[in-house]
Amino acid sequence: MTALIDRPTLPSPASVLVCRNCLAEYPLGPQHACLECWGPLEIGYDPAALARVTTADVEAGPHSLWRYAGLLPVGQDPATRVDSGTGMTPLIRADRLAEELGFTAPVWVKDDSANPTHSFKDRVVSVAITAARELGFTRIACASTGNLANSVAAHAARIGMPSIVFVPADLEPAKITQTAIYGGTLVGIEGSYDDVNRLCSELGETDEFEDTGFVNVNVRPYYAEGSKTLGYEVAEQLGWRLPEQYVAPMASGSMLTKIHKAFKELTGAGLVAETPWTVFGAQSAGCSPIATAFSAGVDDVVPVRPTGIAKSLNIGNPADGPYALDAVRTTGGAMASVDDDEIREGIRLLARTTGVFAETAGGVTVAVLKKLVEQGAIDTTKETVVYNTGDGLKTVDAVSDGARPTAVIKPTLKGMREAGLL
Amino acid sequence: MTALIDRPTLPSPASVLVCRNCLAEYPLGPQHACLECWGPLEIGYDPAALARVTTADVEAGPHSLWRYAGLLPVGQDPATRVDSGTGMTPLIRADRLAEELGFTAPVWVKDDSANPTHSFKDRVVSVAITAARELGFTRIACASTGNLANSVAAHAARIGMPSIVFVPADLEPAKITQTAIYGGTLVGIEGSYDDVNRLCSELGETDEFEDTGFVNVNVRPYYAEGSKTLGYEVAEQLGWRLPEQYVAPMASGSMLTKIHKAFKELTGAGLVAETPWTVFGAQSAGCSPIATAFSAGVDDVVPVRPTGIAKSLNIGNPADGPYALDAVRTTGGAMASVDDDEIREGIRLLARTTGVFAETAGGVTVAVLKKLVEQGAIDTTKETVVYNTGDGLKTVDAVSDGARPTAVIKPTLKGMREAGLL
Repeated sequence: MTALIDRPTLPSPASVLVCRNCLAEYPLGPQHACLECWGPLEIGYDPAALARVTTADVEAGPHSLWRYAGLLPVGQDPATRVDSGTGMTPLIRADRLAEELGFTAPVWVKDDSANPTHSFKDRVVSVAITAARELGFTRIACASTGNLANSVAAHAARIGMPSIVFVPADLEPAKITQTAIYGGTLVGIEGSYDDVNRLCSELGETDEFEDTGFVNVNVRPYYAEGSKTLGYEVAEQLGWRLPEQYVAPMASGSMLTKIHKAFKELTGAGLVAETPWTVFGAQSAGCSPIATAFSAGVDDVVPVRPTGIAKSLNIGNPADGPYALDAVRTTGGAMASVDDDEIREGIRLLARTTGVFAETAGGVTVAVLKKLVEQGAIDTTKETVVYNTGDGLKTVDAVSDGARPTAVIKPTLKGMREAGLL
Repeated sequence: MTALIDRPTLPSPASVLVCRNCLAEYPLGPQHACLECWGPLEIGYDPAALARVTTADVEAGPHSLWRYAGLLPVGQDPATRVDSGTGMTPLIRADRLAEELGFTAPVWVKDDSANPTHSFKDRVVSVAITAARELGFTRIACASTGNLANSVAAHAARIGMPSIVFVPADLEPAKITQTAIYGGTLVGIEGSYDDVNRLCSELGETDEFEDTGFVNVNVRPYYAEGSKTLGYEVAEQLGWRLPEQYVAPMASGSMLTKIHKAFKELTGAGLVAETPWTVFGAQSAGCSPIATAFSAGVDDVVPVRPTGIAKSLNIGNPADGPYALDAVRTTGGAMASVDDDEIREGIRLLARTTGVFAETAGGVTVAVLKKLVEQGAIDTTKETVVYNTGDGLKTVDAVSDGARPTAVIKPTLKGMREAGLL
């Protein structure tokens, strides 16, 4: 399980695993924690290798996230990729949303519900399962709040690899069905996501799971890099330039930081002009440890027991919380949280102004955008990208009470008249 | 409401409305029935205009169905298009499905659940709403079994056009919510789809609906052309050639015939080599008027009262039934129908072999593919495309009983052992 990634024909730009805490370095492989300080490891790249990537290279690639293979740790050889068609999701100009919120600059919605299993998790899984196969794992696993479960089970089915997926047993029914349908093993856990995650860490140490790649545990450094493509794509779709502001939801906090990393890499590699950007983070009031630390002006992220309808964001002990705080603070951004009613209203606001039906996490992000405007914390004269990370069909029950037919009538003109529709 | 489509800069290849029954011709406009024989009208094209389209033109276009504007009745001028990012959905090589069914030739799944509202209806709506706006309508409407409702409401929200959508009141809850969420008017009808459709025809004659484009009534000739892109895309994705066989689900029967029309146009315009293809049609046993006529060897499609879980296919009086029969018979194909248990098994078969989670309509198509193989009615040595037209998240309840967690346990290694997972 320690085979290095070493493709003879096409070199990976990844050079090392580096501790985000103490900067200790390790060779590439299935390791996620620093042996010195237990800090999280992430992929380090050879800057010269990244600088060799050109926009023409990217544009000549497939219409999926693998067009950015030159900026990812794996998948340089197309034959090694698990390509489910993930990525290159629409960047939608949301003029009616902008107008309603009082923006004078363009607002864009990056709609990741368009991915194969309808969440941004297809990005991290595409990279993680490609890495896992390269690293010699023969089974794939994850701890999940739902969307990751859907994606891992689907990708495993696609390539015929056994999967075992762990979720809190009280997940939304649609997410349970959408995982079980692919025929892998699905284990419901009587507990929170944090309990699920802890169990997976323990299982990773057992002999029985030696051949199993946990995408967000022992393969996590590779996995997390998949989120960078959310940043690359926005830049490419804007014509190879950066937006001035972006708003992203936070669960572990990883995704927000990886978009930030992507923007830094793009400027470092000379793929876009070095223009400033500001980062904004969104949480649900039922689980806002990172936003709470931001408001309090402290570095410590105090774990919470999550509640509320935004289950895909319900990580009470967010691994990347400190790094998300850092990205937001160093760019002069802000964080906010919204309650369940605001989340529902955020879903409706996005749907009726853009035609995009978001899951609760997207409702969080749009509602936080609205709140940041009301607080004067975000600049409405700056071009802004809002990340929708999942599909409304996954959390239908959250809004079904407030999204009913205008009227139910008999199939006659008389019925129409009685309902005041004619 | 009779304004012709007339773009000064970019000509449309559409030249006429032609009756599919008696071949009478009418000028382009919002008319759907022949004044001579009441047969359905469809768009006729100038063959010379179609022949001017090149593969390079198409490939230089956007990554959406509008890349085929040169073969569509509207949208030649990009500024006139309603582009929701519909189309260019994945064509997935399904080797594990092929193997399980005993195919020696490639089997492909054209996965239209990847469209913005997760069904092929986004294709017909993109074209219909573009046409409706061009024709001067200021409100958009439809009769729907659910997927069309989702798509019409979402597209209307995207461009800020009022919408009024009519559906049977007993639809799947997800489809009700996914329509109502966009904020348009949604009317539930106590009756079948055929009742809904009849009411919409009556409403189209009222003064109050004069400014309303019913996408599948008075705008139907334009609407139906959107389905042709399901044929164009498969040909382009195969490297500009036709598959030898395709299997499509049938509700009204329109989509199946439009793929057939697309293949004829592509060969006529010289965009692909003229190779033979065979057409196969799939219905649910709960609503199989077209397949029943096929089996009986008759031309008359006798209306039925639909039952069964494949609600999106539940059109008991299918307008394009005779034309679907003709496409299948003239190409030497076949039709079959499958019951609800077979449909559920079709969904599971597709999911576990390809990672694609289909709605019940996709389950119908895959189950019919399996049945056709068992009957020896389809050639397993020929390259075959299977159309998945919608997303499993829309009909979760149909399979949720059979797609549960393998086990529900406490978050401990002991729990894993007791469940036999460690």
